[in-house]
Amino acid sequence: MKALVYHGPGKKSWEEMPKPSIQLPTDAIVRIYKTTICGTDLHILKGDTPEVTDGRILGHEGVGVIEEVGGGVTSFKKGDHVLISCITSCGKCEYCKKGMYSHCENGGWILGHLIDGTQAEYVRIPFADNSLYRIPEGSDEEALVMLSDILPTGFECGVLNGQVKPGDTVAIVGSGPIGLAALLTAQFYSPAEIIMIDLDDNRLNIAKTFGATQTINSRNTNAVEKVMSLTGNKGADTVIEAVGTPVTFELCEALVAPGGRIANIGVHGKSVDLHMEKLWSHNITITTRLVDTVTTPMLLKTVRSKKLDPQQLITHRFKLSDIDKAYDTFQHADREKALKVILTNE
Amino acid sequence: MKALVYHGPGKKSWEEMPKPSIQLPTDAIVRIYKTTICGTDLHILKGDTPEVTDGRILGHEGVGVIEEVGGGVTSFKKGDHVLISCITSCGKCEYCKKGMYSHCENGGWILGHLIDGTQAEYVRIPFADNSLYRIPEGSDEEALVMLSDILPTGFECGVLNGQVKPGDTVAIVGSGPIGLAALLTAQFYSPAEIIMIDLDDNRLNIAKTFGATQTINSRNTNAVEKVMSLTGNKGADTVIEAVGTPVTFELCEALVAPGGRIANIGVHGKSVDLHMEKLWSHNITITTRLVDTVTTPMLLKTVRSKKLDPQQLITHRFKLSDIDKAYDTFQHADREKALKVILTNE
Amino acid sequence: MKALVYHGPGKKSWEEMPKPSIQLPTDAIVRIYKTTICGTDLHILKGDTPEVTDGRILGHEGVGVIEEVGGGVTSFKKGDHVLISCITSCGKCEYCKKGMYSHCENGGWILGHLIDGTQAEYVRIPFADNSLYRIPEGSDEEALVMLSDILPTGFECGVLNGQVKPGDTVAIVGSGPIGLAALLTAQFYSPAEIIMIDLDDNRLNIAKTFGATQTINSRNTNAVEKVMSLTGNKGADTVIEAVGTPVTFELCEALVAPGGRIANIGVHGKSVDLHMEKLWSHNITITTRLVDTVTTPMLLKTVRSKKLDPQQLITHRFKLSDIDKAYDTFQHADREKALKVILTNE
Amino acid sequence: MKALVYHGPGKKSWEEMPKPSIQLPTDAIVRIYKTTICGTDLHILKGDTPEVTDGRILGHEGVGVIEEVGGGVTSFKKGDHVLISCITSCGKCEYCKKGMYSHCENGGWILGHLIDGTQAEYVRIPFADNSLYRIPEGSDEEALVMLSDILPTGFECGVLNGQVKPGDTVAIVGSGPIGLAALLTAQFYSPAEIIMIDLDDNRLNIAKTFGATQTINSRNTNAVEKVMSLTGNKGADTVIEAVGTPVTFELCEALVAPGGRIANIGVHGKSVDLHMEKLWSHNITITTRLVDTVTTPMLLKTVRSKKLDPQQLITHRFKLSDIDKAYDTFQHADREKALKVILTNE
Repeated sequence: MKALVYHGPGKKSWEEMPKPSIQLPTDAIVRIYKTTICGTDLHILKGDTPEVTDGRILGHEGVGVIEEVGGGVTSFKKGDHVLISCITSCGKCEYCKKGMYSHCENGGWILGHLIDGTQAEYVRIPFADNSLYRIPEGSDEEALVMLSDILPTGFECGVLNGQVKPGDTVAIVGSGPIGLAALLTAQFYSPAEIIMIDLDDNRLNIAKTFGATQTINSRNTNAVEKVMSLTGNKGADTVIEAVGTPVTFELCEALVAPGGRIANIGVHGKSVDLHMEKLWSHNITITTRLVDTVTTPMLLKTVRSKKLDPQQLITHRFKLSDIDKAYDTFQHADREKALKVILTNE
Repeated sequence: MKALVYHGPGKKSWEEMPKPSIQLPTDAIVRIYKTTICGTDLHILKGDTPEVTDGRILGHEGVGVIEEVGGGVTSFKKGDHVLISCITSCGKCEYCKKGMYSHCENGGWILGHLIDGTQAEYVRIPFADNSLYRIPEGSDEEALVMLSDILPTGFECGVLNGQVKPGDTVAIVGSGPIGLAALLTAQFYSPAEIIMIDLDDNRLNIAKTFGATQTINSRNTNAVEKVMSLTGNKGADTVIEAVGTPVTFELCEALVAPGGRIANIGVHGKSVDLHMEKLWSHNITITTRLVDTVTTPMLLKTVRSKKLDPQQLITHRFKLSDIDKAYDTFQHADREKALKVILTNE
Repeated sequence: MKALVYHGPGKKSWEEMPKPSIQLPTDAIVRIYKTTICGTDLHILKGDTPEVTDGRILGHEGVGVIEEVGGGVTSFKKGDHVLISCITSCGKCEYCKKGMYSHCENGGWILGHLIDGTQAEYVRIPFADNSLYRIPEGSDEEALVMLSDILPTGFECGVLNGQVKPGDTVAIVGSGPIGLAALLTAQFYSPAEIIMIDLDDNRLNIAKTFGATQTINSRNTNAVEKVMSLTGNKGADTVIEAVGTPVTFELCEALVAPGGRIANIGVHGKSVDLHMEKLWSHNITITTRLVDTVTTPMLLKTVRSKKLDPQQLITHRFKLSDIDKAYDTFQHADREKALKVILTNE
Repeated sequence: MKALVYHGPGKKSWEEMPKPSIQLPTDAIVRIYKTTICGTDLHILKGDTPEVTDGRILGHEGVGVIEEVGGGVTSFKKGDHVLISCITSCGKCEYCKKGMYSHCENGGWILGHLIDGTQAEYVRIPFADNSLYRIPEGSDEEALVMLSDILPTGFECGVLNGQVKPGDTVAIVGSGPIGLAALLTAQFYSPAEIIMIDLDDNRLNIAKTFGATQTINSRNTNAVEKVMSLTGNKGADTVIEAVGTPVTFELCEALVAPGGRIANIGVHGKSVDLHMEKLWSHNITITTRLVDTVTTPMLLKTVRSKKLDPQQLITHRFKLSDIDKAYDTFQHADREKALKVILTNE
């Protein structure tokens, strides 16, 4: 089969690889129908994720059709259409039992990381019963690719951890795909205001069409002053960090109201300054989270009932075999006005 | 009347002051029976709290007897024995209605700070109906002085925010009075292990008699290695910061298990390094809080039912007029093996 | 002034009464601008509420303008536009501190019940600071009359207690004003399905325009079979009882899914059969609640941000002096297709 | 092997049965070391549980040693000492993922019910990875038999659902083994008062030694009056029903304070009268639950740390082959002053 293979920092190639096979009775082999590219894939290519080794097939998102299941798989059979979770869950370790699949002792984020991933014609999914979700007939399968990672990430790490409530003011720092995923799912809880903050006017304009009630380009506006003036000088009840840098995290610290929450989604490479000399007495909560995908069943219901439209996040489409072009587009997201790209294995 | 008056950094004197009088119909005048000294009072004396001005009577803890009430006070009358909360709550602003009395728009921490305090023969208590608690007859009133500040602080900021649960492992960094208050109240929830960490063997020995299951003197033991070895290399479910320095906060970051909580109690004067490059994916929660004293009624019930013995925290007793000696003892707590001192207005 | 006075079962009259005056420093006198009639007022007229005595002015809802405040009122002054809560809260008893204003030891539901109410030109409001809410300039004051009682009741007793969540299936038994208030506010949480059940097609048609995804007329359809077929034979996650009879409560018991909630809003006059022989093992939760109006500030924010449109509940308008006609319309709600009526004191 | 086999109402015999064998790769065969008898077993023998058919081996509690595992079992191997949960959990259905193992689509309560149980020399455990718990070396294995059913039942259905909190007043109706299990585990949360109510003085005396602060023999004392007098006429914050009859459930309704919880544990055979005409406005919560055993890991930690001593519940010991005598003792629990009996397979 063909797959996108990582060959060390800066090097990848679409090349022939052996088709995966069942290794354990709990495995399934899925023929990829549609997949996508994540910001994390770009990080891997930069060499930021040294545990990814030469020869690894990338990708941790996608939908497809079951090709084969091991003897221990009971929920799926050949021919079933399935959504692949970016997080592999064994369903039986201490963390899985607590719903913290991200720290599964036998899984977690391993696809396209520690084992071969989904940017390929076929993928092996361990613990298939707990790591795949059946796609109901008649679904828009392309849209569901957004439920592999980006929507549960925005929802669990940003919205749920941020405890968004009706009537609240929410500020989201970062209007890229993940910030927009938080914006879409924050609206499940009817906050009064959702303020998007970014440096790029195009992304802020998109945010407005996605439901933001206010946008701030912090390149030319003092975001702290603006949010304070919008909130009677209190700050935002929930602040969602969707970038992953010290400067954006410190902005969140300045935006949060007494009694409020900072919910971090961003992947950080450095420590940040936490202003405890001010915040110690502000009764705030800061959370971090690697997505658990424990809300995937809930999100599937919100898509089915049209409370959530994941199609909004998709801007570009390619054949899977044109994956190099797709990476180029996604790597120049600003220039291309790209959010998420879809790759179809025809 | 006599009172302890602040006269700028390093200067205080026990001197004659006018007896306070009712200023608003919601005020009460309380004749102090017993009061104490808080670490915060020492901070004020050092000049760390510049909003405290020359001429201010210090102190925000105590029990006493109602001397007079304003026309709007309905819950108390002359002669009632009362516990004074360190936090003044108006009961009608947005924050009070949310149970966040610490940020009361008309009160908060004002006693011995923005208005005259309790280290005096009499004190004026604003919003008396919401800021005083009736002491049931037959109570050990001295013990209840510990409910003005230190026990609700340890409980709300450390134990409640830290979400201590049966079977959990709790680590408390700092075995001073406030860390010990957290230790005492953490036991309400039957954690499996409570590990106290400090630099002082005397305080750690006290912690053992107060219920710590493990103690670590981090002067001569690597606290991180020790906690990891005690927890199967996972870390503590709840870590309580009861010191207020960058180094102790960073120790908490190193001790917390994936999925765990860091509950800050310490008053910080500087920012701290938050290791988001590691913690972003650890699903942790960090909380800060100025005590709200919203649990004072609950704590009163636990004292009455002997689930909590506040007397354990009291090591020294003085006449109120000997307050200078009491300050000297409390300022040299290590030398004097002092926890909390009681001052009695006879 | 003129007021609607109760004179025993079946008897009321619009007559001259003394204008109320300040009795305690925490009182305010409000000139009524708009008020309405509640189902509870009809119950009183039937004689179902014997604690209401001859001579009592009815009504517990409304908006108006402050005419005078007592010396202890600090949040309001003459001329302020205010929303009157149906629940009077002293802000200082044990229940108020817990946010359970309905059981306030000095208030609770007393307006138009134990003290004179709002169907009058003026009303005295005890504990004004905690029982009135400022109306921001530019608000649609008529719409806010729906926030005195019906919307917080539907929201707190039905939606909050019922723990409605994104993707859930909600069934509401009773499509009268209170069931519709639950329907409107349930949508704050983006459930996948909201199934309204009633005996009246007109009300069910209104429910559809208010956001119901399914309606069932249980006069001609087996509601249990229908809900089971809509939910894969599981039942509804949240079932809201908005009628108050044994038969509708038993219907709720039959509709709830394992792990689900029955949230009662209805006022009951008789005991109901609770089928514990079936439900003991179904992991369900049943809640009851007299509205606390603790969410009024939140609801005000949702109205201001247009997440909630209370105007939808208003079908008829009268002059306050035409209150007899208004009662007639409201008492024949089915015939008149009436939901809530507005009475204006011009 | 030998096993206790049900042969229809009133009939059981200790007889030779085929040794169980692996049927699915997720199965394990456990050699029983110790087991016990449950009140539910007596119900089955009475014929109250018609789904139990002639030929079924009874019993759903026990500890033992792994004899053999199927190819899909990864957490256990031959020779491991294990605790058997009364609830079988597949770990992958919708209910298991929510932590509601009691309603597992592939398991739930099946042992000694729909499949052969633990009152035998060997038992087959389906979904072994999710339905067994490793016993740490050096544990008191006999005591852990109490963690198969009775302690998680008292804790989850009574204490967790009843939301017991520090300082609260708890009333437990029924001082049999299950009420006593609730009594023991309620103390994890340091309530101020735990009032036990029963008709049997012996059981009430045991309750006192187990930590009850008050006992009421409702044969000769009006329990409602007594609880009201103990609670300042408010009632209990949490009321736990541990009997399962209409009269005891109605007693709970009369005992619960406004804002309080009724947590049902009892297995009911009939509907009960729910006094909604009174309770509709009392802001109460009623819960039902079949134990999920989701807290077994937590309970194991509390036993290991000596916060819970399950030995207290064991009063009699027999050889497994003397199971008829053990049933006789347990069936005459009052006469024999029996709580739980232990059967050892030597």
